[in-house]
Amino acid sequence: MKSDSPASVRVGLLGYGNVGRAFARLLASRAPDLAERRGVGLRLVAVGTRRPNDARDAGLGDVRWTTDLASVASAPDVDLVVELIGGHEPANALIRAALGAGKIVVTANKLLLAKEGASLQALAREKRAGLGIEAAVAGGIPILRALRESFAGDRIASVSGILNGTCNFILTEMEATGRAYADVLKDAQKLGYAEADPASDVEGEDAAYKLALLARLAFGRDAQVAQIAREGITRLLPCDFLYAKRLGRTPRQLGVARELPSGHLLLSVRTHLVSSASLLAKVTGPFNAIEVKAAAGGSFVFSGRGAGGDPTATAVLADVVELARSKGEPRVPPLGFADLLPCEAASAGEFVSAYSLRFVVRDRSGIIADLARVLADHGANIDAVFQEPWPDKDALPFVITLEPVAQSALDAALAKIRRLDFHVEPPLAMPLTD
Amino acid sequence: MKSDSPASVRVGLLGYGNVGRAFARLLASRAPDLAERRGVGLRLVAVGTRRPNDARDAGLGDVRWTTDLASVASAPDVDLVVELIGGHEPANALIRAALGAGKIVVTANKLLLAKEGASLQALAREKRAGLGIEAAVAGGIPILRALRESFAGDRIASVSGILNGTCNFILTEMEATGRAYADVLKDAQKLGYAEADPASDVEGEDAAYKLALLARLAFGRDAQVAQIAREGITRLLPCDFLYAKRLGRTPRQLGVARELPSGHLLLSVRTHLVSSASLLAKVTGPFNAIEVKAAAGGSFVFSGRGAGGDPTATAVLADVVELARSKGEPRVPPLGFADLLPCEAASAGEFVSAYSLRFVVRDRSGIIADLARVLADHGANIDAVFQEPWPDKDALPFVITLEPVAQSALDAALAKIRRLDFHVEPPLAMPLTD
Repeated sequence: MKSDSPASVRVGLLGYGNVGRAFARLLASRAPDLAERRGVGLRLVAVGTRRPNDARDAGLGDVRWTTDLASVASAPDVDLVVELIGGHEPANALIRAALGAGKIVVTANKLLLAKEGASLQALAREKRAGLGIEAAVAGGIPILRALRESFAGDRIASVSGILNGTCNFILTEMEATGRAYADVLKDAQKLGYAEADPASDVEGEDAAYKLALLARLAFGRDAQVAQIAREGITRLLPCDFLYAKRLGRTPRQLGVARELPSGHLLLSVRTHLVSSASLLAKVTGPFNAIEVKAAAGGSFVFSGRGAGGDPTATAVLADVVELARSKGEPRVPPLGFADLLPCEAASAGEFVSAYSLRFVVRDRSGIIADLARVLADHGANIDAVFQEPWPDKDALPFVITLEPVAQSALDAALAKIRRLDFHVEPPLAMPLTD
Repeated sequence: MKSDSPASVRVGLLGYGNVGRAFARLLASRAPDLAERRGVGLRLVAVGTRRPNDARDAGLGDVRWTTDLASVASAPDVDLVVELIGGHEPANALIRAALGAGKIVVTANKLLLAKEGASLQALAREKRAGLGIEAAVAGGIPILRALRESFAGDRIASVSGILNGTCNFILTEMEATGRAYADVLKDAQKLGYAEADPASDVEGEDAAYKLALLARLAFGRDAQVAQIAREGITRLLPCDFLYAKRLGRTPRQLGVARELPSGHLLLSVRTHLVSSASLLAKVTGPFNAIEVKAAAGGSFVFSGRGAGGDPTATAVLADVVELARSKGEPRVPPLGFADLLPCEAASAGEFVSAYSLRFVVRDRSGIIADLARVLADHGANIDAVFQEPWPDKDALPFVITLEPVAQSALDAALAKIRRLDFHVEPPLAMPLTD
C-alpha cells in the first residue's frame, strides 16, 4: 500500500464548533499516516459554518470556507459530508441533500438520528450511499460498531450504562464532596461539563436519544424517545449518597434497554443504586460506560470519554475511514438491521426490581407504620429500614429498601404515600442494580 | 431483506473441542435469525475432527462428519472454513490450503497468528480471500475490530490489560482468600479455569501470543513473541497481597505494549501492582480487560469473558457474518495494516517505572542498610519501606518502594542484591501502575 498514493476522498465539513474544529485538526494531522499506512486518502476541501468568524482557521491549508451550508452538502467536489451542526434542522435537510446526491454522510447527531434514523437509513440504502453514525453515542467508545458487527452473532439481552457524562460528573462529585446538586452543577458549568441550560443533560433527554439508538442496534426494533421512561438527577440530595454508601452502593444515572420474555423492551433513563463492587461504580467523572449482556458471550463493559471534541472527532474519523474504504457500498446498515421491527415498550407492571425509597420527613411517631401499611396494601415487601443519626428533626432523611416489586405497584403505593402529611421532600425511589 | 431468503454461505468447521462445539451450536441456533434479520445465510456443511467419537452430534442436522481435516479445507462445497483446532500444525497447513483455494477463513488460533500472522495475511491478500481473527484475542471482547477500525483515525499510545483469565482468576482468588499459589491453582484446575499443565497460562506465554497480535494491530509493527519480556505469576506469595493492599493496590498480570518516543515498542507480560481505584482492579475472576490509550480519544477500557467456548464462539460467528457479507473481498487487512513495519523492542533502559520490591528474609540487623546501599549505588531511590508485624522471624517479608527508575538499573541492582545472604525467597519486583 505504501507505494501507491491512494486517490483522495474529498471531505466537506458542516459545523465548526467544538467537535467540528477537533475533527478538522485531527484529519489534518492524521491524513498523511492514513494515506501511507492505511491506504486511505482523505482531503478536507470545504467547511460550512454559519459563524463566519469561526472560519479561516490557520493550519487547515487550502480549504473553501462558506456560510452557505447547502452548497457544501451538494458540492460536486465533495465525496463525503461530515455533519457536526447538531439539532434537527437544518442538519436534517443538509444530510438528505447530501445522501440524495449520492454522497457518503458521517454524523454525530444523536437527536436527529433518534428522531429520523430509520428514514435516513432508508434514504441512504436507496441511494446506495454510506451513512456513519458511530459518534452519535458515547463519543469515542465504539459501541455502535460493536453492537452492529461484534455482537451480530449473539442474542443481546440488555444494553445499559452511563450515557451522559454531565450527570456522571455531577453524581460522582456530589458523592466525593458531600455537596448539594445546585452547587456541583455550577462547578460543572464552570468546567465546561454542563451547558448554561443543563436541562437536556440532567433531565435525561440527551441519554434518551442515545438509548433509543442503542436499543435499535441491539434489538433491531425502532425504539422511540417517547417510549423511554425518564427521570433526571435533580432531586438527589447529599443524604442519598450517605444511604447509598450504607447499602454498599452508589448512585449512577443509567440508560437501560432490556428485552423481556414478552418481546417488549424495557426502556428507561433514571438513577439506579449500583453495587460498589461493579465496574460501573468505578466510572467516575465525565466518562461513559456501556454494559452489554449477551446470551452466549456474557457481560461486556466498554468505558471511555463519552463526549468532548477530541473523542467524538476520533469516532467521526473512524467512520470516515471505514466509509471512504467502501466508497458508497456500506456492508452493514448503520442501524445494524436493514428493516427495524416495531418496538413495543414494556409496561410499568413488567419492570420488577428491588428498590431503595428515600424519605425526608418532619419527625413524628408512626411514620414508618403509616408507610409500611400503604406499601403492604400494594404488595410491596419491606426488606430493611435505615435511619442514620441526623441533627435536623424537621427534615429527617431515612431509607426503606424493598424486595423486588413491580414498578406499577410501587407507583401506586407512592401516589398514596405522597399524600401523607409528613414529607419535607418528595419521596425518591431508586432501583437497586448489580 | 426479510422477503428474499439470502443465498447460503457454506461453512466447514475444523476442530470439535470446547470452542468448536459451542460454535456449531451457536450457528445452528442463530442461523434463522441471521438470515431473516441480518440478511446473512449461513449453513454448516462439514465438520472435521480427529476424534471420531466427537462426531455425529445430534441437533446439527445434515452435516458431513470426517476425520480427514484436509478434505474440509479443500471441499468444493465449502465457502468458509472455521479453524478451531489450535496449535501450529496441522492448523497452519489447513488454513493455507483453504486460503489457497480462495476460501474465507476464520480462526481463533492465537499461537499460529502470533507466529505466522503476517504471512497468512499476505496469502489471504494474494488470494483475495477473507481472514477473520477476532476470536484469537480476549474471546468475546471485540478488541481487534476496535483497534482495526474504531481507532484507525487516532494514534495509539499504548494497549495493555488482563489478557489471561487463568492468571486473573488465580490472583484475585489469592487476594480474596489469602491462600497460597499452589492451592489456588489446584482449585482453578478443578473449576476448568486452568489446564492440567498450566505453564502456558501462568508463565505468560498465552498472554504473549495475544499481546503480539494487539501490538501489530495497534502500531502496525510486526511484534514477535520473542521480543516480549515475560514473567509469570508463580512467585507471588500471600504476603504480596497484604503489602499491595497496604499500598492501595492489587496485583494484576498485565500485557503491555507501548510506543516510546524513540519508536521502539515496550513489550512485556508481568505482574503489576495496579491502583485499587482503577477499573482493572475491579476485573476479578476469569475475565479479561484491555485498556487502549489514544492520543486524541483518551483512555478506553473493554472488559468481558476472555475465554471459554461460548464467548469465543460469538467472536468467531461475528467474523463469519462479516466475511460472509463481503464474500472474499475483505475491506480491511486482518492485522489493520496491509504492510507491517519491522518492530524494534525497547531495551530495559527505556522502561522507567516506580516499583515495589518484596523481600523475604531471615531477620538480622543491617538488612535495610545493605539493600539501601546497593540500590543507591545503581541510582535507585527508595520511596518508602513497609514492614508489617509478622510472626516468623526466619521468613520475614517486607517491601521497599522505589521512585521511578530504569529497569536496567533495577535489574543490575537486583542481580547484586540476590547474592546477599539473608534471602529466604528471591526478591520480587513489580511495577506500580495507575
